[in-house]
Amino acid sequence: MPDQPMPSSLLDRLSALLGPRGLLTDPADLAPHLSDWRNLYRGSTPCVIRPGSVAELAEAVRLCAAAGAPLVPQGGNTSMVGGATPDESGRQVVVSLARLNRVRDIDPLDMTMTAEAGVVLKAAQDAAAEAGCLFPLSLGAEGTATVGGVLSTNAGGNTTVRYGNARELMLGLEVVLPDGQVWNGLRRLRKDNTGYALRHLFVGAEGTLGFITAAVLRLFPRPRETEVALCAVRDEDAALALFRRVRDRDEGAVRAFEYMSGAGVGFYARHIEGGTVPLPGYDHYVLVDLASSRPEAGLRPLLEAVLEEALEAGEVLDATIGESEAQRHALWRIREEHPEAQKREGASVKNDVSVPVSKVPELIRRASEACRRLIPGTRPVPFGHLGDGNIHMNLEQPEGMDPAAFLARSHDIMDTVNAVVRDLGGSFSAEHGIGRLKTDMMPDWRGGAELDLMRRIKAAVDPQGLMNPGKVLP
Amino acid sequence: MPDQPMPSSLLDRLSALLGPRGLLTDPADLAPHLSDWRNLYRGSTPCVIRPGSVAELAEAVRLCAAAGAPLVPQGGNTSMVGGATPDESGRQVVVSLARLNRVRDIDPLDMTMTAEAGVVLKAAQDAAAEAGCLFPLSLGAEGTATVGGVLSTNAGGNTTVRYGNARELMLGLEVVLPDGQVWNGLRRLRKDNTGYALRHLFVGAEGTLGFITAAVLRLFPRPRETEVALCAVRDEDAALALFRRVRDRDEGAVRAFEYMSGAGVGFYARHIEGGTVPLPGYDHYVLVDLASSRPEAGLRPLLEAVLEEALEAGEVLDATIGESEAQRHALWRIREEHPEAQKREGASVKNDVSVPVSKVPELIRRASEACRRLIPGTRPVPFGHLGDGNIHMNLEQPEGMDPAAFLARSHDIMDTVNAVVRDLGGSFSAEHGIGRLKTDMMPDWRGGAELDLMRRIKAAVDPQGLMNPGKVLP
Repeated sequence: MPDQPMPSSLLDRLSALLGPRGLLTDPADLAPHLSDWRNLYRGSTPCVIRPGSVAELAEAVRLCAAAGAPLVPQGGNTSMVGGATPDESGRQVVVSLARLNRVRDIDPLDMTMTAEAGVVLKAAQDAAAEAGCLFPLSLGAEGTATVGGVLSTNAGGNTTVRYGNARELMLGLEVVLPDGQVWNGLRRLRKDNTGYALRHLFVGAEGTLGFITAAVLRLFPRPRETEVALCAVRDEDAALALFRRVRDRDEGAVRAFEYMSGAGVGFYARHIEGGTVPLPGYDHYVLVDLASSRPEAGLRPLLEAVLEEALEAGEVLDATIGESEAQRHALWRIREEHPEAQKREGASVKNDVSVPVSKVPELIRRASEACRRLIPGTRPVPFGHLGDGNIHMNLEQPEGMDPAAFLARSHDIMDTVNAVVRDLGGSFSAEHGIGRLKTDMMPDWRGGAELDLMRRIKAAVDPQGLMNPGKVLP
Repeated sequence: MPDQPMPSSLLDRLSALLGPRGLLTDPADLAPHLSDWRNLYRGSTPCVIRPGSVAELAEAVRLCAAAGAPLVPQGGNTSMVGGATPDESGRQVVVSLARLNRVRDIDPLDMTMTAEAGVVLKAAQDAAAEAGCLFPLSLGAEGTATVGGVLSTNAGGNTTVRYGNARELMLGLEVVLPDGQVWNGLRRLRKDNTGYALRHLFVGAEGTLGFITAAVLRLFPRPRETEVALCAVRDEDAALALFRRVRDRDEGAVRAFEYMSGAGVGFYARHIEGGTVPLPGYDHYVLVDLASSRPEAGLRPLLEAVLEEALEAGEVLDATIGESEAQRHALWRIREEHPEAQKREGASVKNDVSVPVSKVPELIRRASEACRRLIPGTRPVPFGHLGDGNIHMNLEQPEGMDPAAFLARSHDIMDTVNAVVRDLGGSFSAEHGIGRLKTDMMPDWRGGAELDLMRRIKAAVDPQGLMNPGKVLP
C-alpha cells in the first residue's frame, strides 16, 4: 500500500496526456515492472507510464515534477543491482522508455547511428549490421537490455577490451532533464570542446540525473575474419601472460579475452544441455577471440604462432581453435552459460569487481583463498573479462550446504572479496553499477571529496531529488 | 594597476608556505605568464605561485579561497584561445603547475602511466617510449604543453582518428578542488561504474572547476611499421573517398589522415626553409599516415593497393610514399609548418571547427566560397584532421591588403564560417576549447538547457566562482 498515495489529479493528467497505451495501472500490467532481473527487490508503483515520444515524456516529467512525484526510469529492466525497480513506498512512478524505439538514422560514412533509448541492444546491433557496420557492444542481456539502459549504466560486456565501455561508444545524447526540459546534445562529432562534457555525466548516472532519450552511437567496420580458441592454461599468471602475448602481437585484433575456472567449466559440462567441453579436466581456461576488418588479416597463423609460443613456455597446456562459425559459437557458449550453470549448481554470491589488469592473478588467488577460509568448502567460480581487469569473482556454495545458510553469509563474502579488491587498487563495481544493491558501500569506497561532489552535482541537476531516488547515492 | 589589490596578508602567507621558488612577484618573472601563445591577451597578476607538491597546492588554494582570490591555472601556456592568461584586473593569481612534473609510475603490463600535471607532453611521450610503449597524444605544441593542460582542454591533435582525444586516453585523475580538498581518483581501471564520472567533468573544463594535478594515462603498443604518403587529390570529395578507402581496408592502422589545400602547401614551399614539395601545383592534398604494432603488418602493400584503386577511380592524381624515416618526416613537415607558413604569408583568421566527417567537403567548399564573397581576394587555407571532421578553416588576407584591415574583419569571418558549420551540424570549437576567446559564443551555440546546466554545475563545484573566472562560461 502506498504510504502517500499519488494525487488522483496527477493520474488524471497523465492519463489525458498519454492515453491508454501510455499509462498502465492494472496490477497484472504493472507486475513485470516491479521486480528486478535477479529477484532481489520487489517494489510497488501507482502506475507505469510509457510515453510515445520525447515530447510526451517531457510533458509527463513536468507534470510529475509539479506534483513532486518521484520517477524511476526503466529500459529492459535487466539491472544486476536493482537499478530500475521502484522502492516499496508505492510513490515512485515507473517510466518505461520502451516505446521510444526508433533507430533515427545510420550513416556508414560517418560511422554513426542515432538510436532512441528504447531500442533493444540486439536491434541496434542488427540495424548496424544491415548498414554494413558493427555496433560492438555485446553482453548477455542484449536481447532485452536497451540503448538507454546500457548508456545509463555504462555497460561493459565482452568486447570492452577492444571497443571500450558504452561510454566510449557514445558521441552525443538527448536528455529529458528532471524539470522536463529537453537537452538536445545529439552531436555527431569526434571533436567538440565547447564547455563541460555533460554527456559523460548522464552516462553511468543510472537515471538519477535525467532520462537519456536518444544517443549518437559510434559504429565500426564489420570484422572480415574471426578466430576463437579455448585454451587450458597452467594457472592465473599463465592466463595473463597469454593475454600479453596476444596483445603485443596484434593489439587491435583482441576482441575478447575471457578467463574461466575449471570449476565453472565443470558446472557447464554438468548442467547445460549439450554442454560438452573439448578440453575437460583443467583448472584454468581462457577464451581468446580475435577479429579484424582487414582483408587477409592472417589471424589464424597469428593465433597459432602465439599458442605455440605459449605451449613451449608451459603457459598453455592444451588448446583448440574453432574451425567453423558453429564451433566458435560452441566455445563461446561455455563462457556465456556460466551464470546459468552456476545457478543450477546451487546458491552463489556474485561479485562484479575490477583491478588493474596486472593484478588479476593475485585477485583470483587471494579472494578465492580468503573465501575458502571464511566458509570452508566454498567453491570459487571466477570468470570474465581478464583483458579489462574485470572478473566476476563469484562464489558457489559448498556441496551439501543449505543454500539459504550460504546466502545468509552474502555480505561477509562480498566484504571478504572487496577487502582484496581494495588492497589491489580495484573497484567494487566494475560494470554492473551501484543501483540499489551497492549504495551503502559508496561512503566507504567513494566517500569524502568524491561523494560530496556527486551529491552537489545531484542537487544541482535534480534539486527536487525526484530522479530514481535511493539509487547510486546513499 | 590592480583595481582591488591583493591583501598583503595573503601574499605573506603564500610566501611562507611556498618559499622563494614557489612565489614569483618580480615583473620580469611574471611577464611570460601574462600573455597568451597567440598574443591576443595581456593580463596582470599580483603573483605567480608555483607549488612544489600537491599538498602545497592544496594549502595555497585554501589560503586563496579564504581570501577570495581568483585563480588561473597555467600549464605550458600554449592555449589558442587565451584559456590560461589572467584578465586585466590584477586580482587573478596565476597558478603554475610546472613544478609538479614527475612521472609517478609506468606499467607496461597494465599499459598505464601516472603523470603529474606539469609533465611536458613530449616528456610523457618519451617516458612511455623508454618503457617500450606509446603515449599517442601528439600535437604541434607538444614540446611545451603539459599533461594537465592537454587534459584540462581535452586536446586532440593529429592521432585522434586512431587513439581519440585526451579524454579517451585518461583513466583516472587527481584534482585539487576549489576549496583546497584533494580528490584522489587515480584509478588504473578499465571498468569502474561507481557513481558519476567526475573525471570526465574536469577533462575539458579548462580549469574552471579545479586543478588537475595528476592523471592515469593509457598507453599503447609502439608501432612496428609506419607508412606516410602525400597524395594530390582531385577535390575535397576525393579526399573523403580516399579516407573511406583506407579506413575500410584497415581501420586500426589509420594513425592520421590530414587534408591540406594547394594554397597552404604553396605557402609552405614559399616561406619555409627547405620547404620543397614533391608534388607541387595541385589544389588539394592529403597526408595519409598508417601505423601498426603488428609484426609484418603489410602496410606498404596495403597503401599501394589503395592508392592504385584511387588513382584508377580518378580520386588521386599523384602520390608519393616516404621511403625512409627522414622522408616521412619531410612529408609531415609540410603539414606541421602550415601555421608558420601562413603567418609569414600575412594576416590570417583561424577557425578551429568540426563537422560530421561526411560533411567535410561541403564545409570546405561552402565556407571558402562564403569568405571569398565576404572579402574578395581572401585566400582560404583549410587544413587538418579530415578523419575526425576537424578542419582548421583558416583564412589568409588578400594579397596586398593591409593586415590590420583584414584582422578588423575577424569576427565577420568567424561568423561567416560558423554559419556554415552550424548548418552542417558542427561545432565552433573542435579541439582548442573556449578559453576567453569564445565565451561570448556560448549562449548562441550552447544556450538554453545546456548552458544552464553548465552554470549549475559550476556553482555546485566552485560556489565562490574563483576558478579561472571569465573562461568557458560567459
